[in-house]
Amino acid sequence: MTRSNLSSADQQRLDGLYARLLALRPRNVGYPTNQDFDFSELFRFLEFSINNVGDPFHSTNYRLNTMEFEREVLEDFARLTRAPEGEWWGYVTGGGTEGNMYGLYVARELFPEGICYFSEDTHYSVAKVLRLQHTRNIMIKSQADGQMDYDDLRETLRIHRDVPPILFANIGTTMKGAVDDLAKIRAILDDLAIANAHIHADAALSGMILPFVEEPQPWCFADGADSISISGHKMLGAPIPCGVVLARKTHVDRIARSIEYIGALDTTIAGSRSAFSPLMLWHRLRTLGEEGLRAMVRGCLERAEIAVRLLRACGIDAWRHENSVTVIFPRPPKPVMEKWIIAPRKDIGHLIVMPHVTMAMIEEFAADFAAAMQP
Amino acid sequence: MTRSNLSSADQQRLDGLYARLLALRPRNVGYPTNQDFDFSELFRFLEFSINNVGDPFHSTNYRLNTMEFEREVLEDFARLTRAPEGEWWGYVTGGGTEGNMYGLYVARELFPEGICYFSEDTHYSVAKVLRLQHTRNIMIKSQADGQMDYDDLRETLRIHRDVPPILFANIGTTMKGAVDDLAKIRAILDDLAIANAHIHADAALSGMILPFVEEPQPWCFADGADSISISGHKMLGAPIPCGVVLARKTHVDRIARSIEYIGALDTTIAGSRSAFSPLMLWHRLRTLGEEGLRAMVRGCLERAEIAVRLLRACGIDAWRHENSVTVIFPRPPKPVMEKWIIAPRKDIGHLIVMPHVTMAMIEEFAADFAAAMQP
Repeated sequence: MTRSNLSSADQQRLDGLYARLLALRPRNVGYPTNQDFDFSELFRFLEFSINNVGDPFHSTNYRLNTMEFEREVLEDFARLTRAPEGEWWGYVTGGGTEGNMYGLYVARELFPEGICYFSEDTHYSVAKVLRLQHTRNIMIKSQADGQMDYDDLRETLRIHRDVPPILFANIGTTMKGAVDDLAKIRAILDDLAIANAHIHADAALSGMILPFVEEPQPWCFADGADSISISGHKMLGAPIPCGVVLARKTHVDRIARSIEYIGALDTTIAGSRSAFSPLMLWHRLRTLGEEGLRAMVRGCLERAEIAVRLLRACGIDAWRHENSVTVIFPRPPKPVMEKWIIAPRKDIGHLIVMPHVTMAMIEEFAADFAAAMQP
Repeated sequence: MTRSNLSSADQQRLDGLYARLLALRPRNVGYPTNQDFDFSELFRFLEFSINNVGDPFHSTNYRLNTMEFEREVLEDFARLTRAPEGEWWGYVTGGGTEGNMYGLYVARELFPEGICYFSEDTHYSVAKVLRLQHTRNIMIKSQADGQMDYDDLRETLRIHRDVPPILFANIGTTMKGAVDDLAKIRAILDDLAIANAHIHADAALSGMILPFVEEPQPWCFADGADSISISGHKMLGAPIPCGVVLARKTHVDRIARSIEYIGALDTTIAGSRSAFSPLMLWHRLRTLGEEGLRAMVRGCLERAEIAVRLLRACGIDAWRHENSVTVIFPRPPKPVMEKWIIAPRKDIGHLIVMPHVTMAMIEEFAADFAAAMQP
């Protein structure tokens, strides 16, 4: 092994970065990235040049892999998303964009001339992916609360009944946490007698919330999704972006190609994939357990509700969707934006009550916000 | 912080994985993944939910990032690839496929109707990317040594002079380490009076070899490349796939889009990107230094040459390209394939003499190979 040999100036650079991150951490209340994790017992695996190249369900010649753990993680997610037993496939991705890219790729291979419909509240990366993949697409209006405007969707589909639709559903929009209702979307398709369609669910954040609430909105395979992308570094938490994508197996089989070089059917996008991310996801799922996850999500939803009330009590027009940890309010004044790490867009901002966002942080944020509103 | 709470059965699973990886490590001689690294002094950064979302050269609202280190890494790579000063852009990727996808995306945005030309020795992932991006493409014959057949390229370009070409050059093919000669490719383009072209260099492995040899083949920006992808987990070494993509700035500006949400121009493919990978690359570059890198590469090339001679002395028809650490030979018999981690393809196999592949490993491999050849 190579011994570390950084100059003292470079060591100081790293120390400075560490100090900066440590100071910023308690101010991170506006992004859906759970900071509450401890992967120290996995660090020893970073000694190896591990790589989960190719399909996790096939053997690979590159034996320094963690595919056995990856398959377990995928099975857990298949259960949580109510995937049809034995009829799904998936892999651990490098994050939400790759998962959405994969779902849209599968859809376009099914319907090469298909048109993708997505609401104007959809994350900007989706337009980027559609452009990259040369997929025809139409942006649908949003309702004020962030959900897709179902009337606009119906009208737009109605005048394009000759082209198979690819529905991109937000299971939790980035800014407002709104869930596009898969039951309503399916009903529109049925009503228009459109049999050929692919529904991709971008469940980056809410894909790890809705499995644990009493009355989830319709969002998963059982509700009609054909592919689902969920982030790992969001509700579960990880220091490196990662996620999971799942799709109905029949759809994936179309893009399978046998490649001897990696001794695997390469149905993934990335090829070389992190073998550490499956370990992190596995570690989170196993240490928390289903009851731990349920308690974690319940806590976030409870604190989100308290945050709404606290902000409203300060005269700030805060609100949130059912089953959402995203608390929306008017864009905060500059001093608040400078102290706290917030993701504003146009005239709104939001608090995202992740597991690491404590009541103390919420109270301090509300007090700062109220103070900055004083004339 | 959450305390670890794995069951003892799960702890044993991890111990089993660790033991398995430890046993496999000394047998990994057939893949271009350097195992010789030690990132333990960076592990403390895995406490944070860091993320380099968006363009590394713009500020982002997500302040828990390592973009300052990423920019330094990119500057080093720009120097090593002889990028035009002040006229390049790039980012740290999740690996070679993303880098190639980016280069081909930039090229297709420049020439939406362009045809991509790549040799039959090109890694299978490139055909996958071209299909994903709906880019017209033509596979060019290879020479026996793995280089592109320049006569076939010339003839094929000649009959498509009405369409801008996108040249995909292998700077080290996967199986044979062959370098497609950029000077020859440029000369063909000039000869055919083709002014509009984009050359992407897939320098996954050799992009960290050729900057350190006396007489490199023409491969970099100074030799006519318009975009270059280099892997980080290959010659430098990393436990998680990563890499760098660089492109001429004028080409990238076309796909820049201003996005307020991340407070950045999102010109990357991934969106959320690992903030840990730039630290690993930075750490390798700073601990080795340019002289250390040069010595590391020289050592690999010397051992590769000894491996060729040793195998030939055993009656095995081994050979390698100039400036290449890839030693090619007929596909080894089954017992050799079972003991060693080798990537065969059709009737050939190869040893890739990475920094961790010692003389002792080479000698043991050659002895096993010779023994298995006995009748």
